[in-house]
Amino acid sequence: MTAIPRNHWYVAAYSREIGGELFARTICGEPVLFWRTRDGSVTAMPDRCVHRRFPLSQPPSRLVDDQVICGYHGFTYGADGKCVSVPGQTRIPRTARLTPYPVVEQDSFVWIFIGDPANADPARVPRASCLDSPGYTTVAGMEPLRARYSLLVDNLLDLSHETYLHGGYIGTPEVASTPITTEVDEDAGIVYVSRHMDDAECPPFYAKSTGLQGRITRWQDIEYTPPCLYKLHSRIAPAGCVPRPDGSDPDAFHVEVVYAITPETEHTTHDFWAVARDFALDDEEVSAFLAESNRTVVLQDVEALDVLERVIATEPPGYQELSINIDTGGLAARRLLQRMVTS
Amino acid sequence: MTAIPRNHWYVAAYSREIGGELFARTICGEPVLFWRTRDGSVTAMPDRCVHRRFPLSQPPSRLVDDQVICGYHGFTYGADGKCVSVPGQTRIPRTARLTPYPVVEQDSFVWIFIGDPANADPARVPRASCLDSPGYTTVAGMEPLRARYSLLVDNLLDLSHETYLHGGYIGTPEVASTPITTEVDEDAGIVYVSRHMDDAECPPFYAKSTGLQGRITRWQDIEYTPPCLYKLHSRIAPAGCVPRPDGSDPDAFHVEVVYAITPETEHTTHDFWAVARDFALDDEEVSAFLAESNRTVVLQDVEALDVLERVIATEPPGYQELSINIDTGGLAARRLLQRMVTS
Amino acid sequence: MTAIPRNHWYVAAYSREIGGELFARTICGEPVLFWRTRDGSVTAMPDRCVHRRFPLSQPPSRLVDDQVICGYHGFTYGADGKCVSVPGQTRIPRTARLTPYPVVEQDSFVWIFIGDPANADPARVPRASCLDSPGYTTVAGMEPLRARYSLLVDNLLDLSHETYLHGGYIGTPEVASTPITTEVDEDAGIVYVSRHMDDAECPPFYAKSTGLQGRITRWQDIEYTPPCLYKLHSRIAPAGCVPRPDGSDPDAFHVEVVYAITPETEHTTHDFWAVARDFALDDEEVSAFLAESNRTVVLQDVEALDVLERVIATEPPGYQELSINIDTGGLAARRLLQRMVTS
Repeated sequence: MTAIPRNHWYVAAYSREIGGELFARTICGEPVLFWRTRDGSVTAMPDRCVHRRFPLSQPPSRLVDDQVICGYHGFTYGADGKCVSVPGQTRIPRTARLTPYPVVEQDSFVWIFIGDPANADPARVPRASCLDSPGYTTVAGMEPLRARYSLLVDNLLDLSHETYLHGGYIGTPEVASTPITTEVDEDAGIVYVSRHMDDAECPPFYAKSTGLQGRITRWQDIEYTPPCLYKLHSRIAPAGCVPRPDGSDPDAFHVEVVYAITPETEHTTHDFWAVARDFALDDEEVSAFLAESNRTVVLQDVEALDVLERVIATEPPGYQELSINIDTGGLAARRLLQRMVTS
Repeated sequence: MTAIPRNHWYVAAYSREIGGELFARTICGEPVLFWRTRDGSVTAMPDRCVHRRFPLSQPPSRLVDDQVICGYHGFTYGADGKCVSVPGQTRIPRTARLTPYPVVEQDSFVWIFIGDPANADPARVPRASCLDSPGYTTVAGMEPLRARYSLLVDNLLDLSHETYLHGGYIGTPEVASTPITTEVDEDAGIVYVSRHMDDAECPPFYAKSTGLQGRITRWQDIEYTPPCLYKLHSRIAPAGCVPRPDGSDPDAFHVEVVYAITPETEHTTHDFWAVARDFALDDEEVSAFLAESNRTVVLQDVEALDVLERVIATEPPGYQELSINIDTGGLAARRLLQRMVTS
Repeated sequence: MTAIPRNHWYVAAYSREIGGELFARTICGEPVLFWRTRDGSVTAMPDRCVHRRFPLSQPPSRLVDDQVICGYHGFTYGADGKCVSVPGQTRIPRTARLTPYPVVEQDSFVWIFIGDPANADPARVPRASCLDSPGYTTVAGMEPLRARYSLLVDNLLDLSHETYLHGGYIGTPEVASTPITTEVDEDAGIVYVSRHMDDAECPPFYAKSTGLQGRITRWQDIEYTPPCLYKLHSRIAPAGCVPRPDGSDPDAFHVEVVYAITPETEHTTHDFWAVARDFALDDEEVSAFLAESNRTVVLQDVEALDVLERVIATEPPGYQELSINIDTGGLAARRLLQRMVTS
């Protein structure tokens, strides 16, 4: 099991979740208050008044003219976290301020930096540009997971579970039976896991959304940038169809399945998921089908991982798992995460 | 945060709560069994059979002729806690006795001494005589608080929160904006906090109960006798009206707001509240209004303090609050409580 | 309080509970998976895949042809616990196996050995042959107890509680008032507690089932084989009626009340109960009455012991009980259990 790396960027929310009202979410064990200021930017600060720790998101706390007024004793803060008013006196203590969190809005997400703000480099926020690109249509959601985030990392890095846990949705026998290749870019800190099935059954998830009939070529190319961003580049095409020599791939369907894996606490996780496709861009039926199907798949994972969390809670210390070839990606991810925690 | 002082008197119940039936309440972490004996006095003893710790308040335990019979094996105790019968033998072990708690009934409360009974001095039970005086009419209640008692002490010693948490009930802008004076009687162990508003808005709580219209003079004089008894001497009068030179004050309305702050456990509290008035003594509408309004205000506190308890439970160790002038009373109270715990 | 002895046999289930479907139950803190193989024998193994600890009883895990397939990644195990298939590779790691638990089916129970299987001697499974004998008719059930198993041992070894907790069902004044005799067979590790009432009221439990009217002779002979098997040999006859010199006892009614006391966790217990009678063997009304009555009695115990577990959870360390003559059997049982834990 892995602790939570600090001094990293995490997805806190979808941009659309944060508007002109107070919004609270716990990220990596830290309660955070968000709102979108009148100039359109997202502000983030600790959700806890400096005075008596009352949550600034808790009514009757309220937002007035880009200032948040604590509902307990009226301490008032600007969008920069500085206290501008306290009750019963005009002098405001110098230390009456909340340290804002660095925030970046990018690719439909609100990213937040957890750790020392001096270490926050916006250029290091990893990209998921397909989620906000005119070439793709995206459906997305977030499910709360009552399990530690490392269980979700394990889950997503080893897709052989699709055959068993998601049979009838996205799993077919070939996923579990086809070997994977794993590569780790140690410098960039990225884990790649690939599984290319050249002659596979087409699961309902892709058959209904693409209209393909018969056997398919199915490529799963995972790119995991720890701790938070997971992308599955999925390529579906009629069996035997390969990209052209010039790199174009007009006869294939491409789906980017993106997860943002954000620890809420040591034992709970925000499971953000998105499915972006490069076909049937305006077909709302396809959008509705993919949203419903992927949410079902995510909830199957949630149910299984919630069970695993409870299993871990009651097992004796020192329990040893057994790992095999399918786990090389997950083990590499654990190693990178462990390095992030201890470095 | 403050631990619970022992060797002190605490309010266990209202006198009216304890009659000829078994009554159980946990006080300062100790489960206590009460009943009113046939001679009219209240008896209190540990709510736990000496044999196998079965609660004597738990059916089928029952009270017969001022003796309580344990529902598990029939150990039977008199009102003095001495065991008078055990199953299967006539000899009763010398140690088969429950040590009664010292109890005082006074000012509508049942007070109990938690600690070494040898230290219990009934003369040291603090007074709230208005609650049982013909010159006053009182409404009262008790709300369970899922927060440590020190959070309620903080809350009541700093009434600037009325403006924010109790706006529309008892809070007006002047409460938060008017400075306080704080005094501590170190010998008697009493904290006094006063806030005199000479020209203030009249909140609905007082406007509807007194019939006053327009601006008012509003005095809040707090007298807190740690650990348990809090009294707010509240004076409401037309703006500009002061007591006469002889001390009489016929044009003002006086309300005594009394709280008894009794720890149930380390993290839960019995929040006893009472409102005694010296006007409209026989007006049941005023009684109903004040009871309903004060209960609403107490429940607003309960909701806020329950939130704070959960905030504290998840925060990292060593978290530091920021205190300002309004907190001088609360900080003095914490200091006296801390002295009680360590002395 | 006593920890859980290992290297002992425990009742895991009634034989009738385990058929051709996956069945899970936690025994002594260990999650165990059971099923009845096609050859009719019961198999038991850890309910946790060696790979990523997914419970093999948790859907979509499933049983196919006496092999269980993990619902997460498809690891597949035979009835002997050996893994026969893993995803993505043909080589099966040598360590991919679950160690089966020794199991014995006897006297209507499935017994399981918790500890080192090398120590499991089927000849040491204690007998309750009346439960599976043509001379008796048995009703049985199991109730979950949210209390440590030692509280149930205390309860059953001291039946004086019948008078108070089970008055109106199986308790009468004579149970509590009649002294007991206690014997311990140190070599066999068995505690015997006897109470013979020669002239007693007949409780409804026996009056309605036997049809006896008037005063009775009632013998309670307890035989407890720690940790799991408790038998109460109950003899009911018209007052004054004793067994004949040849040992036959044709005018008495005999009831064997059997409990299997199996820890689920440190703080919860499986409370198996059975009532076997040697009269009215085919009378379904008597069966229904005894089943309903004994279940009611067990639930009265469950309610009381669940309360005691909560009492213990909140009491200060070092709390001392007081024991008297009725407790000699319970104290002997505690001593044998303690010896089992430390030996």
